[in-house]
Amino acid sequence: MREVAVIGIGATKFGELWDLSFREIGMQAGLAAVYDANLSGEDIDALYVGNMSAGRYIQQEHVAALVADYSGMARDNIPATRVEAAGASGGLALRQGYMAVASGMHDIVVVGGAEKMTDVGDNESNEIQSSAADEQWEVTFGATFPSLHAMIARRHMHDFGTTREQMAQVAVKNHKHGSLNPKAQYQKEISLDTVLKSPLVSDPLGMFDCAPNSDGAAAVVLCAMEKARKYTEIPVKILASGQASDTLALHHRNSIVGFAATRVAADRAFKQARLTARDVNFAEVHDNFTISEILAIEDLGFFPKGEGGKATMDGQTLLGGKIAINTSGGLKARGDPIGATGVAQIVEVVTQLRGQAGKRQVADAKVGLAQNVGGTGATAVVHILGVA
Amino acid sequence: MREVAVIGIGATKFGELWDLSFREIGMQAGLAAVYDANLSGEDIDALYVGNMSAGRYIQQEHVAALVADYSGMARDNIPATRVEAAGASGGLALRQGYMAVASGMHDIVVVGGAEKMTDVGDNESNEIQSSAADEQWEVTFGATFPSLHAMIARRHMHDFGTTREQMAQVAVKNHKHGSLNPKAQYQKEISLDTVLKSPLVSDPLGMFDCAPNSDGAAAVVLCAMEKARKYTEIPVKILASGQASDTLALHHRNSIVGFAATRVAADRAFKQARLTARDVNFAEVHDNFTISEILAIEDLGFFPKGEGGKATMDGQTLLGGKIAINTSGGLKARGDPIGATGVAQIVEVVTQLRGQAGKRQVADAKVGLAQNVGGTGATAVVHILGVA
Repeated sequence: MREVAVIGIGATKFGELWDLSFREIGMQAGLAAVYDANLSGEDIDALYVGNMSAGRYIQQEHVAALVADYSGMARDNIPATRVEAAGASGGLALRQGYMAVASGMHDIVVVGGAEKMTDVGDNESNEIQSSAADEQWEVTFGATFPSLHAMIARRHMHDFGTTREQMAQVAVKNHKHGSLNPKAQYQKEISLDTVLKSPLVSDPLGMFDCAPNSDGAAAVVLCAMEKARKYTEIPVKILASGQASDTLALHHRNSIVGFAATRVAADRAFKQARLTARDVNFAEVHDNFTISEILAIEDLGFFPKGEGGKATMDGQTLLGGKIAINTSGGLKARGDPIGATGVAQIVEVVTQLRGQAGKRQVADAKVGLAQNVGGTGATAVVHILGVA
Repeated sequence: MREVAVIGIGATKFGELWDLSFREIGMQAGLAAVYDANLSGEDIDALYVGNMSAGRYIQQEHVAALVADYSGMARDNIPATRVEAAGASGGLALRQGYMAVASGMHDIVVVGGAEKMTDVGDNESNEIQSSAADEQWEVTFGATFPSLHAMIARRHMHDFGTTREQMAQVAVKNHKHGSLNPKAQYQKEISLDTVLKSPLVSDPLGMFDCAPNSDGAAAVVLCAMEKARKYTEIPVKILASGQASDTLALHHRNSIVGFAATRVAADRAFKQARLTARDVNFAEVHDNFTISEILAIEDLGFFPKGEGGKATMDGQTLLGGKIAINTSGGLKARGDPIGATGVAQIVEVVTQLRGQAGKRQVADAKVGLAQNVGGTGATAVVHILGVA
């Protein structure tokens, strides 16, 4: 396989973007990344788009062709492919782009992710998000995406003594990071009390334990490493891509206090990169709920199983701590436009590795990791990136 | 890039499969292909699933993880990825699997396609299929998928003198082929009169000019060529994969009497395979409407532009004619479970190249082509396969 570099990044603001349509945010993010990579349109060989559910959010399937069209790529008949795995759609789109370049099929590939969630009401959005879980054996019986995560949280509390305060601290930390990110949906610090007193969504998860509904898009440009320096002086190398799946329904698993898919995807990625968790300087992880970040930092090997909550409370995952987690603000504060999220994680990792993260810059950032999850852990994808 | 072979094929029956769920048909097709390839589960490295709109047909996104789960692949945490480009979803899933093996990332990949369309009513299904076109600039204003194709047909009639009879003959021929395919949804010959007198769907297209709503799934197993003979004595080689896009809306194109995406995808594929249209012995093309097959056989270079209708009427595309088109029965008679279609085309091409097509066997089949289209030609993907 050829080595692959990220040579361009771009993103829209994340939030309630009622004056922008899906095609507009897709185009904005893509063009920002292409501009950042110093490319012109003719250089691009292919487009991948991560998107979970445009079919239900905006009654439009076939969205990769749509984004290609409105970005001017249809003029050159550039191949455009949508990839979907619920919350992991963006990460899997990156993985396909990575393989397309690594294989030698393409030299330069744009990978975007986009979701327009706020054109429907909150209840409908909740229903759509729940279609990431098992419709036939979970959702039909009343389970929702938050309630499934609430069960995971309860079991983690039962097994390891994890507390609501420790979970709440994930949100506090990520809002603190978000306050340093001018592209975050929420750039405001919050207190532990705000999280603990927020209305319950599904016990023990309150409103501030949940990532918001967001509109937004993000994009990166991939290039064969051997050609990357033609376009940029600061290429960032994709050291590894690992993916794994698990049962769709939670009740089919032996354990729900961790995601096997994350562990296996990370294992595969670490093997490919010939690195271990200790070599990682910082990470973007999939904190769609506060409990999810605790699972992630344990499953990725940053902390022993059961100690993620305590480590968070101790400030070990804060910027400047043992390992900075979600410096972008994470899904919680940066925002979570589902299909965009996995790509936005890569945008943050590249920003850090380039040393362009400003007030939230991780010191000596050499190796960064992104973990992107679909459903309640039925899909996980882990990418490791490094300074080239 | 490594050479890639198809070493296994499988499919469900296509039709109104009311007693089978999405996960069941996905599993059936996948297991049939794995069995055909003489594999056991541990040999499989990854799964790709082509699907257009399970989110709206069965309220379930994240369907690749679902199929992996019910096929026993989640046990080994096998990566599972859904690919979507409306009607071209299956063909693009194949292309991702092809690149995954060609890149060296994986050795053995299962590529499936599935759609469960008959759980909703015909009107709703029509709405869902129309989400392959441009929602904002076509569908909102009343255009449907059939009516957009009707406009294409009218213009083709105007420019080239193509007749309703010539289009109808596409359906007559494909039903004749379908009558020879024990897996086809319709295994019954029909007369030209039946097509011409069928109720108008969108003038000039009648009921029998349109492919049916279908449930069904198809799957193939891909393997690095260097390892293929470990599993089968009749590997079929993927000689090329070409993909292209075009504007999503018809009104943005200079011409609608052909699909530029098909022409460019074919051109890319022929270049990769170092072949021309003359080298192709038979082809499966995307006849979702009768006019679509006429466009396809012209755009692929089998007949000059404007002469596809006449060639069809002359029997040149019939089994035994100049070039047999849609020996499976095509989308019209084999059935068109959207996401499955592109993979089902490959199943037929491989069946022919293996010499296992029974009564519908093409004599001396050495090189076969599959053309799969998304929307009204905004996506096209062309694969060329050959005897190894």
